Amino acid sequence: MSDKAFHGNFFEDFTLGQEIRHATPRTVTEGDAALYTALTGSRFALHSSADFAASLGLEEAPLDDLLVFHLVFGKSVPDISLNAVANLGYAECRFGIPVYPGDTLTAYSRVIGLKQTSAGTTGIVYVQTTGVNQLGEAVLDFKRWVLVNKRDPEAPAPETEVPELSEAVAAGELVLPVGLTCAGYDAELAGSPHFWEDYAPGERIDHGDAMTLEEAEHQMATRLYQNTARVHFDQLAANDNRFGRRIVYGGHVMSLARALSFNGLGNAFRIAAINGGRHVSPTFAGHTLFAWSEVLEKRELPGREDLGAMRLRTLATKDRPCADFPDKDAEGKADPAVVLELDYTVLIPRRG
Amino acid sequence: MSDKAFHGNFFEDFTLGQEIRHATPRTVTEGDAALYTALTGSRFALHSSADFAASLGLEEAPLDDLLVFHLVFGKSVPDISLNAVANLGYAECRFGIPVYPGDTLTAYSRVIGLKQTSAGTTGIVYVQTTGVNQLGEAVLDFKRWVLVNKRDPEAPAPETEVPELSEAVAAGELVLPVGLTCAGYDAELAGSPHFWEDYAPGERIDHGDAMTLEEAEHQMATRLYQNTARVHFDQLAANDNRFGRRIVYGGHVMSLARALSFNGLGNAFRIAAINGGRHVSPTFAGHTLFAWSEVLEKRELPGREDLGAMRLRTLATKDRPCADFPDKDAEGKADPAVVLELDYTVLIPRRG
Amino acid sequence: MSDKAFHGNFFEDFTLGQEIRHATPRTVTEGDAALYTALTGSRFALHSSADFAASLGLEEAPLDDLLVFHLVFGKSVPDISLNAVANLGYAECRFGIPVYPGDTLTAYSRVIGLKQTSAGTTGIVYVQTTGVNQLGEAVLDFKRWVLVNKRDPEAPAPETEVPELSEAVAAGELVLPVGLTCAGYDAELAGSPHFWEDYAPGERIDHGDAMTLEEAEHQMATRLYQNTARVHFDQLAANDNRFGRRIVYGGHVMSLARALSFNGLGNAFRIAAINGGRHVSPTFAGHTLFAWSEVLEKRELPGREDLGAMRLRTLATKDRPCADFPDKDAEGKADPAVVLELDYTVLIPRRG
Repeated sequence: MSDKAFHGNFFEDFTLGQEIRHATPRTVTEGDAALYTALTGSRFALHSSADFAASLGLEEAPLDDLLVFHLVFGKSVPDISLNAVANLGYAECRFGIPVYPGDTLTAYSRVIGLKQTSAGTTGIVYVQTTGVNQLGEAVLDFKRWVLVNKRDPEAPAPETEVPELSEAVAAGELVLPVGLTCAGYDAELAGSPHFWEDYAPGERIDHGDAMTLEEAEHQMATRLYQNTARVHFDQLAANDNRFGRRIVYGGHVMSLARALSFNGLGNAFRIAAINGGRHVSPTFAGHTLFAWSEVLEKRELPGREDLGAMRLRTLATKDRPCADFPDKDAEGKADPAVVLELDYTVLIPRRG
Repeated sequence: MSDKAFHGNFFEDFTLGQEIRHATPRTVTEGDAALYTALTGSRFALHSSADFAASLGLEEAPLDDLLVFHLVFGKSVPDISLNAVANLGYAECRFGIPVYPGDTLTAYSRVIGLKQTSAGTTGIVYVQTTGVNQLGEAVLDFKRWVLVNKRDPEAPAPETEVPELSEAVAAGELVLPVGLTCAGYDAELAGSPHFWEDYAPGERIDHGDAMTLEEAEHQMATRLYQNTARVHFDQLAANDNRFGRRIVYGGHVMSLARALSFNGLGNAFRIAAINGGRHVSPTFAGHTLFAWSEVLEKRELPGREDLGAMRLRTLATKDRPCADFPDKDAEGKADPAVVLELDYTVLIPRRG
Repeated sequence: MSDKAFHGNFFEDFTLGQEIRHATPRTVTEGDAALYTALTGSRFALHSSADFAASLGLEEAPLDDLLVFHLVFGKSVPDISLNAVANLGYAECRFGIPVYPGDTLTAYSRVIGLKQTSAGTTGIVYVQTTGVNQLGEAVLDFKRWVLVNKRDPEAPAPETEVPELSEAVAAGELVLPVGLTCAGYDAELAGSPHFWEDYAPGERIDHGDAMTLEEAEHQMATRLYQNTARVHFDQLAANDNRFGRRIVYGGHVMSLARALSFNGLGNAFRIAAINGGRHVSPTFAGHTLFAWSEVLEKRELPGREDLGAMRLRTLATKDRPCADFPDKDAEGKADPAVVLELDYTVLIPRRG
């Protein structure tokens, strides 16, 4: 027998400053885009139509931002989080150069923080992961931190280093695609009459629609991203976990919440940044997802009168409509139906 | 809070002659075609092979006709039928210019009839919906009528206008793709030895094969078409409806019946028109579909000796084989297993 | 009524030397490749990245070898095995010219053997099936034999002819893609540090990962291959069979086993031949698949120092991890959890 199969890195395998090149390189295609539509029902015009993309000054329809996120994230899983007890959070996620069919994505991560937990059997690993295209241009950059098991509980603790993380990506750091213009934005074709000017901080939007999840769907999505985290695929092992179920990849929940948000945010055509996110509780096949959003902040973009940025907080719930905006209670405890809380920044056209 | 989410038009929102441009534009791709094959199992050679398409004089493999139908139909759903109590019927559906990967489809509808029902709480809306490619060429044109709720039962009734609808699209109105020729039609490669000459009006064909439906499949198909009708996706709401189930999009049933019809009609390579259709009863995941067809009529095409038209009536059943051609009983009541009755016109090569 | 639907060939329909051209021609696309990834989770870099393929001297990313196998095999089903009682085996399967998106595949079979069984009601048909691209170049060639029903038990037996079949495709007969070089093979990007030199005959590898199967997944895969074998799709008929379940297409199990084998065999980038295979017992939706492999033999390739061949035996199990390599017992009886035993030859880079 041999030990050629890889069982993932443990806490003591990571060192501060370490850089890890991830497998598997991926040439993205119109096939990936079609599957993303079939799996999420997304209707944002920019990603759906080459002609609409051209009307915004782009060469063709770029891949959905979250599809890019999942592909890059998926590459990091075997090296970073295969032995994760928990995905604790992510921050400073910034989308770069748009990704077009035919581009080839690769990814690498740098270890930017380490902290052994007090129990001594696990530790927190902080990484910065970057996805690049075939020209080496960054398409995505994010930080995340995961709680990882130690292989040997007796292994010495590394020096503690906890990186400082911004609460949100600053407006000046957002990447605007080269050539992007909303001067001729066709809101009717895009499917929403609401522009940047029409939203107000504090405004809450119930997205109204709903989507019931199936095992085959989340498995296909997660495999499309070549994400190998076993909890999404192995029902035999799941029979013995505390849920008894395969856990839906949190990114699939993000994508469904984003697709549901079209109804109310149909012109928010690009996610420019994800400031933070929490998978509040696990989602399983059979759950019906709903979503609502709160406008946290509106930001002007320097020198741009055709588009603005908007910071949003979108919550997804399971088996519970969002007409009354389920959220934290007085003690700050999340409503038990909430499965996702996502803080992100979108680009949206102005009336000019 | 806000009301940015769109909840669809109600009966009093429609006016005679009104024209509605629909979101979301869509560039169709080989990804859509591959998914259509995976979701329906269709085997018509024209849509499967660029070389076969070239042998018929076409530039490459066009998208399946029903895939085009579903994409255009899906665009009309948010504006026309989100508050529909029932989809009452469709007629005069004519397929135009073939659609190739890379084409961008948009759609618009014109209100051609209105009729408040006697109860006064609903009304029938008749629309003509047109799908066009990026050059503005019509790829599809159809009429349909839906029973829509009124927002305000007290709203005044519009003047009644009921359009005249043809029983079938006339042979002279069928669109033949430019350059189409069946002179070198390779029936062996297409998978069927039967030509136009071999069919006789009144002939009935049991297609023999069967297909069991899964939730993930019909949801993926319906999302691929960006069709947002909630009854297909929301199990939580379905728990309270009279079926307790998500309802399969009727168009998916049409596609499966068409795919099953390959066995017996394998050379009927193009749907030129849909003369009418009825979704006799709802279909749910777990049902096994069967289909049979009746040849209603054979039509010569002016000036063409290489191909002819054939008007067909295809019935799909659930959980019931079709060896004995289940149909209406003596009183005209449909067999309870029948879920679909489709009257359409196909192009099929002649022996020449 | 008519008998236009085709019900497949019976034993007496086959004659020695007969050649059958199969329907349906298929232009393969990036859509097919994306679906294959979504359905299997395969991560071999060659099929995932155009840039990686270019680094190996190929023009772009070829389709996965097993995807090609399933497409060609699927074409042969309606003509060869629709009335098969059992798929008895296959041998001498050799992969030829790589298949790229845009290629059009067709297939034909030659009857190379016939043997009526002693009962007289069935017979074994041996065929050689070849898949070719649009230039007529062979992309795949294999032999298989199936037990087929007779239509008329009284039909006379044909002369018995049983072809000789090699135990394995010889190293000299393997097809190396033109231009293929592993001189600059990037093992880190490919996701595995193990080269040809690192494996030893007799070595056994537990691939560790697991995948639970869903009905929608195997149905979509099998339809993607335009494989019409009814046992995979018809639950109504399955209610009356001895399993009460739709049977997962054995080829889907092969693909999942191959995808699982990435973990331990990640550099085995091309299947050059399948020497033989057995679907030991049926697989159903809900089963969780595991896999392990044994290195049977290592072969040098004449004149090549950059890559070698390796003969493998991969076993897949259902609902049973493979840490202890479940296999035959002392009497040669397969472990009841084993569903697949595949003997095949891969190309893998050498350290040079």
